[in-house]
Amino acid sequence: RKPSKITWDAADAEKSGFPHFMLKEIHEQPQTILDTMRGRYSYETGEADLPDIGLTPKEFAAVDRIWIVACGTSWHAGLVGKYLFEDMVRTPVQVDIGSEFRYRDPLVGKRDLFLTISQSGETADTLAAAREAKQKGARVVSIVNVVGSTLARESDGVLYTHCGPEIGVASTKAFTAQLTALYLMALHLARVRNVMKEADGKAWLDRLVRLPVLVESVLRREAEIVAIAKRYYKKRNFLFLGRGINYPIALEGSLKLKEISYIHAEGYAAGEMKHGPIALIDRDMPVVVLAPRDRLYEKTVSNLMEVKARHAPVIALVAEGERELGKTADAVFTIPETHPLISPILFTIPLQLLAYHIAVLRGADVDQPRNLAKSVTVE
Amino acid sequence: RKPSKITWDAADAEKSGFPHFMLKEIHEQPQTILDTMRGRYSYETGEADLPDIGLTPKEFAAVDRIWIVACGTSWHAGLVGKYLFEDMVRTPVQVDIGSEFRYRDPLVGKRDLFLTISQSGETADTLAAAREAKQKGARVVSIVNVVGSTLARESDGVLYTHCGPEIGVASTKAFTAQLTALYLMALHLARVRNVMKEADGKAWLDRLVRLPVLVESVLRREAEIVAIAKRYYKKRNFLFLGRGINYPIALEGSLKLKEISYIHAEGYAAGEMKHGPIALIDRDMPVVVLAPRDRLYEKTVSNLMEVKARHAPVIALVAEGERELGKTADAVFTIPETHPLISPILFTIPLQLLAYHIAVLRGADVDQPRNLAKSVTVE
Repeated sequence: RKPSKITWDAADAEKSGFPHFMLKEIHEQPQTILDTMRGRYSYETGEADLPDIGLTPKEFAAVDRIWIVACGTSWHAGLVGKYLFEDMVRTPVQVDIGSEFRYRDPLVGKRDLFLTISQSGETADTLAAAREAKQKGARVVSIVNVVGSTLARESDGVLYTHCGPEIGVASTKAFTAQLTALYLMALHLARVRNVMKEADGKAWLDRLVRLPVLVESVLRREAEIVAIAKRYYKKRNFLFLGRGINYPIALEGSLKLKEISYIHAEGYAAGEMKHGPIALIDRDMPVVVLAPRDRLYEKTVSNLMEVKARHAPVIALVAEGERELGKTADAVFTIPETHPLISPILFTIPLQLLAYHIAVLRGADVDQPRNLAKSVTVE
Repeated sequence: RKPSKITWDAADAEKSGFPHFMLKEIHEQPQTILDTMRGRYSYETGEADLPDIGLTPKEFAAVDRIWIVACGTSWHAGLVGKYLFEDMVRTPVQVDIGSEFRYRDPLVGKRDLFLTISQSGETADTLAAAREAKQKGARVVSIVNVVGSTLARESDGVLYTHCGPEIGVASTKAFTAQLTALYLMALHLARVRNVMKEADGKAWLDRLVRLPVLVESVLRREAEIVAIAKRYYKKRNFLFLGRGINYPIALEGSLKLKEISYIHAEGYAAGEMKHGPIALIDRDMPVVVLAPRDRLYEKTVSNLMEVKARHAPVIALVAEGERELGKTADAVFTIPETHPLISPILFTIPLQLLAYHIAVLRGADVDQPRNLAKSVTVE
């Protein structure tokens, strides 16, 4: 494998005028997403160019099944990856939590691609999972941020997220960089396995390269999120609802709020609400609904009406130009139009900002939340 | 398929002296587990005998992959099924939420076994998933309680849970009957696919037939759970932690509490705590820990110590004869010793009782929780 160098230094790790590292890192995302894509695709051929990926196109073509194993926020990225790969690559994906994978004699085989995701590359449970998969003969590829980390060194291939050091304990820019890496990897797999044509690869790249600008446009509307945070920051419980590829983003939005504001927030697949959790709903539990304009839109609106009927304050993230939900929800934030598979990054940004501003309003120590370490290097 | 008759009548649906249907149904479980097993196994051959299962042993042997799709509590049973089948049958299992499965053009194939689980047999999302799987050529087998329900009629094979009518909206006896059916099915698959020897099949049956007596012994200690409920019923947030095959039971325990007491309870894979949720922990959030004596025991103890260090009240469900956790936890309930794969049913019982007694102490309407319907026949 070619050596790769990431150039970052101490100055990058300063707050650059932001009150917290977390907010600085949230605002770096247009750049870090761009950096993670840069030089890794070819418009001419509609392909991703991932020289350190470790497997030849022929080896990728022979893969029977894909595993993704990770912990915490990286696990949420892995769940997005499942929807992405199954849709784009048409190959079954099994996603597992690092600490769960290790202890069940998993059915990993020699024809499996084993993908792990970890910002630090030192997450103990993920590292142990990678070692076990390797021992069982699987090829291991890792999406990692820290160059030269143990996971990067021990994997057959690496896809680095080029997002620089992440100081805030609650992961933000590392998460969207992981998603960006997954988009590149899905494109790579789809093209080398011949399930995506050149023209579709180009169309996919067209969408990807627009992401930094779209993320920037969301960040410029931070004041709207501040206003929403001010209305609801005193609530002690939240629900986050999503469907399909944005279900993991509901989990991630709730995890951010848990981590830094100590609010008991929980993410749910929207369709599961009526199987129990809706009993919880009352005027003291704001519900954040992720509602992209896709084939599930009508279902999501119907879930929302049920929630409204139980008097919960509803915060809706909706596609631009959407009116129906706008009339029903108590607070609305619009998300720029994009392909449904790419929408998770755009839904993530306002949820990061919401968690951040609620935590600040509650007087919590955003960059050093209680009880948490940046990388979990113990089991 | 042979017609099968379930004999129940209106008298069975009365409360028989219990203050609520839910409590009556919790106490029926030794009988309903027995009824679900009765006549469905052969000690002589160490096999399950499931005449309505719809597939021949040869067809089962040809299965490439198993899907389990369900909603709510039945989905939790499906998650237990995944651990069970992967361990006993050594075949990969994909578990999906009904409402999530339908909308992602899933990779179901002709060599797949598609298992659905629904008490009513009318759950809209599960039914639609079964129809889609059938259309894609998969063989559909359903675990259903209501005889002649739509799902039962439309499936290639049925495994009825013989637990009688369930009136309480929060499912209890139907859940443990579903688990019992999954144990029978795992045994059947393991034997017809030749991954389990006759002697091991017999040993497995030995453990299964002891279940009703063990469940009865847990129910006789209801007063211990009442005492725990009295100490913590005023808390507004709970966490439930489990690992491996008992992780879904942590989800189910938290769902029961949500449904009938309106407490915001959340289930978590214990190993994920340090990746975020531990920030939530303080003296106002009791943590219920499921700690069977298995190879994960030491890890679970270590998770528990972290929680204790953050001053959370800890309610530990531990294996009989266990002392270490007993000294650390604030409340302890012991679970009779059994095989780790069978322990989920035994862990479920005290969690049902805990949810019930907390709800009663809070004055909630246990049998008719707000906002919930018994069967979700709309999407």
